[in-house]
Amino acid sequence: MPDYSVIGKPVPRVDARVKVTGQAVYAADISLPGQLYGALLRAPYAHARILNIDTSRAEKLPGVRGVVTGKDFPQTKFGFLPQTRDRVAWPRDKVRHYGEAVAAVAAIDEDIAEEALDLIRVEYEELPAVLTAEQALRPGAPVIHDHAKDNVAYRHSFHHGNVDRAFAESDIVKEAVIRSQRVTCGFIEPHAILAHVDASGTVVLQGSLQSPYIVWRHFCRGMDLPLGKVRIINPYIGGGFSGKQDPFDLDFAAAGLAMKTGRPVKIVMSQEEVLATQRQRHAKEARIKMGAKKDGTLTAVDCRLVAEGGAYACVSPLNMQIFGESGLIFPYRIPNVRYEGIRVYTNRAPCGAVRGQSLVIARYVAESILTMLCEDLGMDQFEIRLKNAYRNGDVTPHGMHVENLDLVGALERVAKDIGWYERKKSPIPNRGIGFGAIGLGTGLARISGYTASAAVVKVTEDATVNVIYGGTEIGQGIDTVAAQVAAEVLGVPVDDVTVDEEDTNYSILEAGMYASRGTVHVSGSIKAAAEDARRQIAEVAAQKLEVPVEDIELRDRRVFSRSHPQRSATLLDIVRESYYGQAKPIYGRGSWTPPYLEFPGIKGAQLVGHPFEYAAIVQAIEAEVDPETGKVKVIKSALADELGQPINPMLLAGQMEGGTLASMGQTLFEDCEIDGKGKPLNADFLNYKMCTSMDAPEQVTQHVICPSAHTTFGAKGGGEISTNTSLPAAVNAVCAATGVRFTDLPITPQKIVAAWKGKKKNTKDG
Amino acid sequence: MPDYSVIGKPVPRVDARVKVTGQAVYAADISLPGQLYGALLRAPYAHARILNIDTSRAEKLPGVRGVVTGKDFPQTKFGFLPQTRDRVAWPRDKVRHYGEAVAAVAAIDEDIAEEALDLIRVEYEELPAVLTAEQALRPGAPVIHDHAKDNVAYRHSFHHGNVDRAFAESDIVKEAVIRSQRVTCGFIEPHAILAHVDASGTVVLQGSLQSPYIVWRHFCRGMDLPLGKVRIINPYIGGGFSGKQDPFDLDFAAAGLAMKTGRPVKIVMSQEEVLATQRQRHAKEARIKMGAKKDGTLTAVDCRLVAEGGAYACVSPLNMQIFGESGLIFPYRIPNVRYEGIRVYTNRAPCGAVRGQSLVIARYVAESILTMLCEDLGMDQFEIRLKNAYRNGDVTPHGMHVENLDLVGALERVAKDIGWYERKKSPIPNRGIGFGAIGLGTGLARISGYTASAAVVKVTEDATVNVIYGGTEIGQGIDTVAAQVAAEVLGVPVDDVTVDEEDTNYSILEAGMYASRGTVHVSGSIKAAAEDARRQIAEVAAQKLEVPVEDIELRDRRVFSRSHPQRSATLLDIVRESYYGQAKPIYGRGSWTPPYLEFPGIKGAQLVGHPFEYAAIVQAIEAEVDPETGKVKVIKSALADELGQPINPMLLAGQMEGGTLASMGQTLFEDCEIDGKGKPLNADFLNYKMCTSMDAPEQVTQHVICPSAHTTFGAKGGGEISTNTSLPAAVNAVCAATGVRFTDLPITPQKIVAAWKGKKKNTKDG
Repeated sequence: MPDYSVIGKPVPRVDARVKVTGQAVYAADISLPGQLYGALLRAPYAHARILNIDTSRAEKLPGVRGVVTGKDFPQTKFGFLPQTRDRVAWPRDKVRHYGEAVAAVAAIDEDIAEEALDLIRVEYEELPAVLTAEQALRPGAPVIHDHAKDNVAYRHSFHHGNVDRAFAESDIVKEAVIRSQRVTCGFIEPHAILAHVDASGTVVLQGSLQSPYIVWRHFCRGMDLPLGKVRIINPYIGGGFSGKQDPFDLDFAAAGLAMKTGRPVKIVMSQEEVLATQRQRHAKEARIKMGAKKDGTLTAVDCRLVAEGGAYACVSPLNMQIFGESGLIFPYRIPNVRYEGIRVYTNRAPCGAVRGQSLVIARYVAESILTMLCEDLGMDQFEIRLKNAYRNGDVTPHGMHVENLDLVGALERVAKDIGWYERKKSPIPNRGIGFGAIGLGTGLARISGYTASAAVVKVTEDATVNVIYGGTEIGQGIDTVAAQVAAEVLGVPVDDVTVDEEDTNYSILEAGMYASRGTVHVSGSIKAAAEDARRQIAEVAAQKLEVPVEDIELRDRRVFSRSHPQRSATLLDIVRESYYGQAKPIYGRGSWTPPYLEFPGIKGAQLVGHPFEYAAIVQAIEAEVDPETGKVKVIKSALADELGQPINPMLLAGQMEGGTLASMGQTLFEDCEIDGKGKPLNADFLNYKMCTSMDAPEQVTQHVICPSAHTTFGAKGGGEISTNTSLPAAVNAVCAATGVRFTDLPITPQKIVAAWKGKKKNTKDG
Repeated sequence: MPDYSVIGKPVPRVDARVKVTGQAVYAADISLPGQLYGALLRAPYAHARILNIDTSRAEKLPGVRGVVTGKDFPQTKFGFLPQTRDRVAWPRDKVRHYGEAVAAVAAIDEDIAEEALDLIRVEYEELPAVLTAEQALRPGAPVIHDHAKDNVAYRHSFHHGNVDRAFAESDIVKEAVIRSQRVTCGFIEPHAILAHVDASGTVVLQGSLQSPYIVWRHFCRGMDLPLGKVRIINPYIGGGFSGKQDPFDLDFAAAGLAMKTGRPVKIVMSQEEVLATQRQRHAKEARIKMGAKKDGTLTAVDCRLVAEGGAYACVSPLNMQIFGESGLIFPYRIPNVRYEGIRVYTNRAPCGAVRGQSLVIARYVAESILTMLCEDLGMDQFEIRLKNAYRNGDVTPHGMHVENLDLVGALERVAKDIGWYERKKSPIPNRGIGFGAIGLGTGLARISGYTASAAVVKVTEDATVNVIYGGTEIGQGIDTVAAQVAAEVLGVPVDDVTVDEEDTNYSILEAGMYASRGTVHVSGSIKAAAEDARRQIAEVAAQKLEVPVEDIELRDRRVFSRSHPQRSATLLDIVRESYYGQAKPIYGRGSWTPPYLEFPGIKGAQLVGHPFEYAAIVQAIEAEVDPETGKVKVIKSALADELGQPINPMLLAGQMEGGTLASMGQTLFEDCEIDGKGKPLNADFLNYKMCTSMDAPEQVTQHVICPSAHTTFGAKGGGEISTNTSLPAAVNAVCAATGVRFTDLPITPQKIVAAWKGKKKNTKDG
């Protein structure tokens, strides 16, 4: 590693103090004078026609200042792809899932707003609801969207090599149907928005919005507003996990009510509303088939995926693509791949991305079948993975060249840290170890539009630094990364750098915080901008020190001559000379976009981003099962990430350990349940259980560093990738501990006990 | 004029709609939740020692949340020049003028805050007060500042050529003592501020601040805060006229109270407070001597100026410099010049700049003595001016080369428009015509630090344009100029351009709105930034149209090939290709500073700005006097400005006509009066009369266009210069109409009648 001053160092978060002291401002903390409080009336049906909405009584309630329904909004459709434009700002004629909002009220306080909701009379014509993929795909099933008579929202398929021939030539072919359930994003801060119309007629949104530029575009389309008439200012965000990417009902309601009443309108969702109606992870069923030679060499994989995704398509095209194009293909060499993914509409809450998109399920499916196949071959679980792991110089089925990857190093590290061979030698009863791994092109290129990040870095006349960029601090620490990069380039302490709040009026451009792209893109743009500022400083310093510009070095708040180290000056003196002596402000500009834009070899893929270098995570989990109750305790996790050069190893380890916990919950107990009419049954955190720190196992997290050649400082992104290995590893560990192969999530104690009983019964019967 | 699309066109103001409809937000309109209201306790003495301040009773008043006095503020001195640092954030030991603030209260409403002021007990030891320059300069006079035992705040002098020899060789030498009074800035919006401390500990000021970057630096110095910990966001401003350049007592009070209480604090001054305690124009007494040859060729001028300026020096060094270096020397050729200006402290409200700085009085003094000399020579008033007017190729006494000036054209235009020769032929009883003229280097260079303007111009993905700059819209129309420049360069309508509010966190840099520099500097930086953006557009367009980059032209929201005009595309398509196709955001960056930084030939001049090209205004005024009452009616104004290429002729004419009215008030009736103890007598707009539209004469305003070779689009600045000719022209007109030479302002009916009586008496006696 080069001799960095702050890059690669465990720099404390720049937002640590304000967050720990409770001073950090989140959307719900913001208020404006004269502000109203909004509340949303939600449909009590999963599928129904709206015949009439009578808001007159609500409007007359003292304290109510405005009511909106579908009549108040344009009906321009928007969506992730042109062919999946299925949403409007506010539904007018029909609701498609339980809890879809049909009206909104703004009142002088929350209580009056809630009371007014009770006074709105909606006449519905209930329609037959479709609640599972199977129901949706049945011929003659009720149609949810007119443009999709078959209830298929999106379809993605490809075939590399010749799968059928490869299976025919394999020594073993294993097949299974593997299922996963719906889970929620699980952020602690519910959606919140404060909308107002400023004096120039611009609609200003201050909200809990993970990727404001995405919201900006979709919101403008939905509201028929030009981009220049909408401004988004982001406070801190209490977690997003991809669940705050879109504009939601509350955003449209707040804006619509603010436009109607002329007053600011704040709406904060309850967690119940979030859990019942907002983004969830698709329920998936994968029919997967994998072949291998006797020696464990993988030959082919064939997968047909059906994803049940609720009432709107959202970002699901990407979900379908990523499952096959990335999750299925990596991190093990499989030359022949066939995939079809079908995304199905149902009358449930819409599914989009949840941290890790479809990768976590793709890896669960693939690592499950691989483990089953390995067991049938009688091979060692670690060795089959090591044997098939991608190495530099390999070419993937879709033609990507693997480079700067140390997957093997990560695998070996994890086998050592979990004590694989020791435990194999001396097993502990009721315990099992399982593996999971992923390779992912991080710092992905374009998704539905542009991908560049751009920034301005100002060096103020007191030699402090301002970073103006579009990164969203959603808890991942991107503001700290931004400050580190600027500090590194300009040779100042991180404390000298102020990272300004995101504001679409002033931030230059940022695609969004998703797909592990933050660190890679933001580092790139801020480094470029800071280097531009550094060049401006060096020009002045070179005159002053009488050396060439390229001889100037910045560190410790000073400028030095490299060739004549005795010549130096303080940064402050140089900056003042620039401002006061030469009337030159110092402000750098930079943007960054991945060097490869195309996904070679995939015609028609909407995911045109070329994952230009792979990052990898390998994880092994040891779990113990109670032989009486079936209760699983995760004992230990050993994880090795290969994410290039970490910018901040402390933050990266935090991502890994948080990601581990997030997916452990899906393995063991999370499930968004509904009744027979589509009404959520456990839409609160009392009944919807997630892992907390109390559930955390011993976690050994190692960074295996193999810097990227194409990114800034050689970093690879670590946010999204971190959730994808603990689930397959934990599933395999539980299966090892219980002696039962589970292909349906979550693996609850009830299922385990039932499986044991069935086994005994089978054994008895057999 | 080149074939501009919007430059030079009378484009309506971009803020016209919000201002006319009352939607425009000014500082007093902004509120924050939990905000407190501040009020200031002001001293009832012009000069007194503060012995003790007891705030305990005020603090106990229910609803009071905080009280501050000098003890709560650092006592770091700040000021315009290092040698004039005489202000602190809040006085601790002494008050130096009537109404100086000694304590401030924040309470839950304005009434409680006012009530609390009554409960504060201040023990003073009254000191002898010095209220005139004469008193201040008397040996043994009371000392106002310890660092200036002689009560002289600043002194500036120079001597070009040999004045004594020139007088000796002159055919005529005329001498007079000419006096002017104190006047106020007269903005309609009083000072207002809303201060709060944000979650990161940054002090945020939203106020009526004319040049936020100047306030930023002085405020930080006064509060001992780093620049990075203060952020200024500017709403619209209801007039500044140089009276809102500094941080004032209310700004420090609001910030101090916000820091102490942890709550936002708003303070809005009353007009009475503004008129009694805030910036005024210096009272001046000039002993001036001018020589000429028989043919009217001017030979020399000698001027000793004493300026009475109140308790603090403020920006007065510049005032002293400008009077001599600019006001006295131009627009007529006078090869020998001697000047000394002395700025004197008194126990009155501090004087700084008022629109036109000291130029208006310099021109009044010079045009008066010139007129008197001309009368003695029996020459024509117009012809003596024409004869001595600077022409291109001339060199000024301080070595400046005159270029790109059409002063002669402006003179001739005005003589024609006022009907000089016709009226000379057939005079109207009780009427007189007077002339006034000025030449001024507009777009002045550096004043106390840097002078650059910098901007970012974004072209958003919908092909609309955002301008991020530091210009302050104080009513002069700079936002419209900014939008015009960006629109011109990018070939879009002005309506496609959004000009963002000024915010020191996001705006790059702007020295301030003063010295007619706005249009010149802002045009420069925005043109540079827009051209940078245009280049980015042209690169994409060139690929698309398959022509060289330099062949690309932007107009009418389209891109064209110049050489193959049939090849074109919409700007929107090109912008989308850039963002979506090539992942390149379009954001230009630019800064501008005048090409000359030094004031050649003037050693030790603090005004190091080189007024690199002269702008000029010539004005003739016809006035009528009532022979019974002495009441003056201004009948007609003919004004010709030579301000290069106007960016917006309509806005420029507005400046000229507003400037004319502003100085007519000083001519005829404005005067800040005090009693014998220094207490203001007419600090309200009922008793302090200013010209309104009801006083406006017929105004003929012509633009004589002689573009600058060094500025953007050839514009010269027009804000400050516009106030300087109506006063001398009106004085000369009144003198012509009355037959009396008045050398003391204002020329009230009482003075006229008294002069007539005196004349008759003298005649009788003689």
